[in-house]
Amino acid sequence: MSIVKRSVSRLAAELSAVRRDDDGAALEAFARALLGSVAEPGDGLLGRVVAALGPVESAELLLESAPAERIAGRVTEVGESLDQREAAAGLERWLPRIEHAAFVRSLAQAARVDARLLIPGDPEWPAGVDELGVHAPLLLWIRGRADALNHGRPSIALVGARAATGYGEHVAMEASAGLVDRGFTIVSGGAYGIDGMAHRSALASDGVTVAFLAGGVDRFYPMGHEALLSRIAATGAVVSELGCGAAPTKWRFLQRNRLIAAASEATVVLEAGMRSGSLNTAGHAAALGRPLGAVPGPVTSPASGGCHRLLREYDAVCVVDAGQMAELVGDHRSGMRPSAGDGDGAGAPYIAAASPNAVRVIDALSVRSPRSLDEVAKRCGMAATAVMSVLGALEAEGVAVRHSEGWRRSRAT
Amino acid sequence: MSIVKRSVSRLAAELSAVRRDDDGAALEAFARALLGSVAEPGDGLLGRVVAALGPVESAELLLESAPAERIAGRVTEVGESLDQREAAAGLERWLPRIEHAAFVRSLAQAARVDARLLIPGDPEWPAGVDELGVHAPLLLWIRGRADALNHGRPSIALVGARAATGYGEHVAMEASAGLVDRGFTIVSGGAYGIDGMAHRSALASDGVTVAFLAGGVDRFYPMGHEALLSRIAATGAVVSELGCGAAPTKWRFLQRNRLIAAASEATVVLEAGMRSGSLNTAGHAAALGRPLGAVPGPVTSPASGGCHRLLREYDAVCVVDAGQMAELVGDHRSGMRPSAGDGDGAGAPYIAAASPNAVRVIDALSVRSPRSLDEVAKRCGMAATAVMSVLGALEAEGVAVRHSEGWRRSRAT
Repeated sequence: MSIVKRSVSRLAAELSAVRRDDDGAALEAFARALLGSVAEPGDGLLGRVVAALGPVESAELLLESAPAERIAGRVTEVGESLDQREAAAGLERWLPRIEHAAFVRSLAQAARVDARLLIPGDPEWPAGVDELGVHAPLLLWIRGRADALNHGRPSIALVGARAATGYGEHVAMEASAGLVDRGFTIVSGGAYGIDGMAHRSALASDGVTVAFLAGGVDRFYPMGHEALLSRIAATGAVVSELGCGAAPTKWRFLQRNRLIAAASEATVVLEAGMRSGSLNTAGHAAALGRPLGAVPGPVTSPASGGCHRLLREYDAVCVVDAGQMAELVGDHRSGMRPSAGDGDGAGAPYIAAASPNAVRVIDALSVRSPRSLDEVAKRCGMAATAVMSVLGALEAEGVAVRHSEGWRRSRAT
Repeated sequence: MSIVKRSVSRLAAELSAVRRDDDGAALEAFARALLGSVAEPGDGLLGRVVAALGPVESAELLLESAPAERIAGRVTEVGESLDQREAAAGLERWLPRIEHAAFVRSLAQAARVDARLLIPGDPEWPAGVDELGVHAPLLLWIRGRADALNHGRPSIALVGARAATGYGEHVAMEASAGLVDRGFTIVSGGAYGIDGMAHRSALASDGVTVAFLAGGVDRFYPMGHEALLSRIAATGAVVSELGCGAAPTKWRFLQRNRLIAAASEATVVLEAGMRSGSLNTAGHAAALGRPLGAVPGPVTSPASGGCHRLLREYDAVCVVDAGQMAELVGDHRSGMRPSAGDGDGAGAPYIAAASPNAVRVIDALSVRSPRSLDEVAKRCGMAATAVMSVLGALEAEGVAVRHSEGWRRSRAT
């Protein structure tokens, strides 16, 4: 019997608390949970091994402390590339993190807080994260509605700085409520400032909202958002790729940001200074080819400096309200970038309702005294015949009035 | 003797007051002034005739009341295309505007206000306007420094709404002063609000500023800006393609906007609502392929709605200060669009100074208690050898401190 099978038998109670699987799926769930515990998020080398051999064989080889030659050999056998040096480098960092007791504690803690283990292929798995390729998460721990990220609604990431201003919070509140009204799930990072306001406003509108954490879902971080994150879990979900007990670190925040971007159809930065971590999320969205929006603010406010930079240098789309944010997703789905005439239908900027010739004829009319056709033609520098046809149209629109002595402009215009 | 030559002889006194020409150039100046008086600004049909036959022959044919066949025939003879129907349409609108007395009055008025007549080929002629092709101005009337638009400095158009807010005026003031400091000539439309502030701030910084008017330069419009426009003419210039006595009309405002855009190397809209005329200037700049910048503002302010639309739908570059506005011109000259790493040199958004591996190692260090190499490696999920090389670099940078018991993070970081 393989080590993985023996482990799954031994951990049957703990695993059944976080999964409802038949035996085969239990093996994979265990293997992914274990692999997730030996590598930091986004470990591309482990991603390559798992892509080649599958999670069960990968976990088996690690639990057996298989030598680098054997791992490299197996990967090569199935037609992928991994050289012995790479395998050795991986083992050097993975093996010291195999700790049976800590792993069992982590599973037990997950069961205690009612966290569920999601793996690729589960109907609730958010398909978008698989576009991260070898950097895709091996698994997700989720508290709340397991299907919060995959239940047929479009999702959008609303992110921004912790150090938000009143302006930024107002924008976040309006945006989140407006997007919930349009049927969106609001994804964010659960942080203070913009993230918190996006979650709160979604909850206030009875929307579904999802928070991705940089540490285990057993410990809600930041502590001041414990109540908020509990409310999110009650109707939406709190999600992490890290097992229970894992502390948030800077690296994990950066990697968590890739999940926010990948799990959402579009990302919008609502307010961010030049060094805000939300710009990292924006970078992930752009790298994934997902639509990226930024909300501008006063140029006199450093709190909007990061948004302006995204607009200026990263080709983010300028979005000013929930309608335009929703369009990001729509345009992406239809392969379009927003352009003139899209959206609110107001058309090109400053094209007077009137044609150029109409503008000129109206210029040449007086409100007070009627002018002859020739006089109007001379004043506007157009041929009398052209003026006549324009005047006909303007008369029909009530803009020009015909008199026995000529034409004048209607007082109403 | 041709009619043009006879006219020039008769008008020698008036013409010498607005030009210092030899005889040949006087013919052309007279012809252009006359043609300018018979057509509205931007008349592309007249532009084609003048491009084909030159201004003197074009004026001659009009003064002779030549039939449409003859004009179309002459244009065709020199290898350009103009059919008889087009020539007839032109004549129908141009001939009624040939008025000798009014034309002489206009010249006399120009002399009275010290306006000079500029024509293409003059050393002071702003070359940029010729890119308007058949819609290029036939001439320019200028009060002030004749070379204000062509004396080796870069020029930039700063435009915006008349209904400016305190925010917009602040932005305009800073932008104009900062661009003057960088050696720019400030071009605008002399209107209330943003335009006025751009001119005023340029004057306050002892800069050169140029106002384009929609009517004759004898009458400063708007009236409330008479003193401002006089100050502009004292050190810069007030310019129009319309002769003295011509009233500003809506059409002429729209055509005046094309000159602002064409005479400047870049155009920046500082604050503009959705219907601001400055968006028309922006449209001309874009049509000419000139760099277009827009300054964002609060999305809660309708006064910035037009700027946001330019960013969103017209690919305007987001500019937040004079430095970025100046870059528009620099990037255009070097054929570049501003991008990451250009400009202020602050680099990509949120790329930590540290590499990804450094971030992970720093995460794994404690400020208080030293940790062994293996402990650090396990915590950050990296191989000990890799951690060792990162620690070496971090020690050199003063970020990590080596102890007999292991490594800790420096308090300074």
